[in-house]
Amino acid sequence: MRKDYLLTPGPSPVPAEVLLSMAHPLYHHRTPRFQAILKEATERVKRVLLTKNETAIFASSGTGAMEAAVANLAASGRKALTIEGGKFGERWTELCRAFGFAHEVIKVEWGHAVEPAAVERALAKDRSIAAVFATHCETSTGVLNDVKALGEIVARTDAVLVVDAISSAGCCELRTDDWKLDVVCVGSQKGLMLPPGLSVITVSPKAKALMEGAKARAAYYFDVPKALAAAAKDDTPYTPALTLIIGLNESLKMIEAEGVENVFRRHKALAEAIRAGAKALGLELYSKSPSDSITAIVVPKGVDGEKVVKTLRDVHGVTFAGGQEELKGKIMRIATMGYCGRYDVIVAMAALEMGLAEAGFKLQLGSGLRAAEEVLLARKVH
Amino acid sequence: MRKDYLLTPGPSPVPAEVLLSMAHPLYHHRTPRFQAILKEATERVKRVLLTKNETAIFASSGTGAMEAAVANLAASGRKALTIEGGKFGERWTELCRAFGFAHEVIKVEWGHAVEPAAVERALAKDRSIAAVFATHCETSTGVLNDVKALGEIVARTDAVLVVDAISSAGCCELRTDDWKLDVVCVGSQKGLMLPPGLSVITVSPKAKALMEGAKARAAYYFDVPKALAAAAKDDTPYTPALTLIIGLNESLKMIEAEGVENVFRRHKALAEAIRAGAKALGLELYSKSPSDSITAIVVPKGVDGEKVVKTLRDVHGVTFAGGQEELKGKIMRIATMGYCGRYDVIVAMAALEMGLAEAGFKLQLGSGLRAAEEVLLARKVH
Repeated sequence: MRKDYLLTPGPSPVPAEVLLSMAHPLYHHRTPRFQAILKEATERVKRVLLTKNETAIFASSGTGAMEAAVANLAASGRKALTIEGGKFGERWTELCRAFGFAHEVIKVEWGHAVEPAAVERALAKDRSIAAVFATHCETSTGVLNDVKALGEIVARTDAVLVVDAISSAGCCELRTDDWKLDVVCVGSQKGLMLPPGLSVITVSPKAKALMEGAKARAAYYFDVPKALAAAAKDDTPYTPALTLIIGLNESLKMIEAEGVENVFRRHKALAEAIRAGAKALGLELYSKSPSDSITAIVVPKGVDGEKVVKTLRDVHGVTFAGGQEELKGKIMRIATMGYCGRYDVIVAMAALEMGLAEAGFKLQLGSGLRAAEEVLLARKVH
Repeated sequence: MRKDYLLTPGPSPVPAEVLLSMAHPLYHHRTPRFQAILKEATERVKRVLLTKNETAIFASSGTGAMEAAVANLAASGRKALTIEGGKFGERWTELCRAFGFAHEVIKVEWGHAVEPAAVERALAKDRSIAAVFATHCETSTGVLNDVKALGEIVARTDAVLVVDAISSAGCCELRTDDWKLDVVCVGSQKGLMLPPGLSVITVSPKAKALMEGAKARAAYYFDVPKALAAAAKDDTPYTPALTLIIGLNESLKMIEAEGVENVFRRHKALAEAIRAGAKALGLELYSKSPSDSITAIVVPKGVDGEKVVKTLRDVHGVTFAGGQEELKGKIMRIATMGYCGRYDVIVAMAALEMGLAEAGFKLQLGSGLRAAEEVLLARKVH
């Protein structure tokens, strides 16, 4: 008997109620029965993303929604500005390259958030920029970027702001309309408490106008104006991932029952508890601007980070994420995403303590746990 | 109490065992645990498609695999030949247009299969054609095209044959390698007995070489060479639809337990029983070259076809598909796909008899059923 605990930044755990809701017998999707579910799920996801913008759901991973944003905005015939501060910021640049979207790049030191002023300068310098591609939570580094500040800056120009909110939506504070985020891309397998396989895109009128712009869209499966037109009729251009959408509707009901503001507060407290616990153990956080959905902890000197992550997963049954690419072996990432409560933080902290102790790192057992409990009690996480 | 029977050409019914297998708790996908499942599912799907070609699985509907074929083969910098004999043949042309793939079109009268000689002539006339895009089962008309004959013709040239086998794979005889089909596109929600949300693409070395060809690929999410390279390492470039792949592995186990040749024989007998029953009721088949996965029946004069389909669905609980676009109200389509046995044919035929009788069509109740039973007994369908 080994119980498994999933603390990775996607997939994240899915409530059993939601898992079972997706075992629903199949029925046809071009029916009032499914259209009612799709309409309800779409309205719910808009409320959770705090937007009135038009919204479409694709059968794809989150990268599909990112491709949809790039491939359709490339039709503007203008330029893109991408912000690279990690693996997922780089994905924006790679997408621009694939779809022939001329682009400038702002490079940000890994572990740091982008300086909003850098974006302001880049936009002032090049008026042909039509779209700024940013990352809310950079999953590879645990950094949260200030997309609210970026929204203010971009809204003063004729460009649009596109935000990869794949690992922040349903976790970190994210106010699509108040923050003037023109396009928001979301995946199902993180804060939305679903398996992977769905992505969501919300599109402001300003962004839609650019997509319907000068050039032909090199987009078919991810043709956003077509998907939005179908969504307006409670439909999808191609066969939707029916059972996942049934599940989405159920997980969104749970999120709305808790209340979106409470969801933000819960994630804030959970991540704060992880950070406090890590610090109490003498560990360093990798991110200078930490996200409330994922905490990147620097592997202490003398410890084999990859081995700790592997042992925790294979022996303890507790799955953290290691570092990717240049951060391989150098950080451990603990996600607090979606279906995650105070006792998940306790499990994570105990695993961190025991995993590091087994690896020979000197620490006082229980000290991380105590610090975490203090935060959880003070923040009244329920 | 109303029991529901799903006889539409996707989604098709999913066995309860498979539905429940997908309620598995989530775990991380970059782990030996998931890689073993992905490897097994990929090997199984290759055996079911009777191919040794490299194969990738996408989180998308079947159209995603079609886009993958077009967007990547457009990199050849040459031309396409599309065959349009229905809504899904037209999709190939639309995709070529979206991805700037110059193309010739062979138009085929709806309800008819393409003449292989027409493809041969088109290839002889224009040596710049690099890819022929064909539809195995044209779901909108119930036509099965002779892709075996097309495979022979195309294999003698330096072009490749791409086959939309979305509504034939796992149902109709389909021999990827023997028939020289360079690229085969499949969706999950038909013969593979899964919910929608996965697509599969198999790629011959000849097709892969064209994809790696002259021009840059306007493909990222559907970058086929990248997906194949990942698949070779039991991995995917982006987060896979993990629970659907768990389900795929289970449904493929069931297909392999029955045996692929038996699956072909079963579908042949089921569709023949439907056709015999329809004829015994004095009904006409729409397709001159009928598929064994879907039977299109012409709505008899004086009968409101849309109303019959709607009444059967909403009152009887039996869902057929109506006609699409220009065939709206003119045909009824009964799918015999995947998780479908002799008593599903009985239900379908009884629904056809009772639905038409209620609509005022003169028929002898039980005569379609008798004809269907005669075929089922003669063909020994188990």
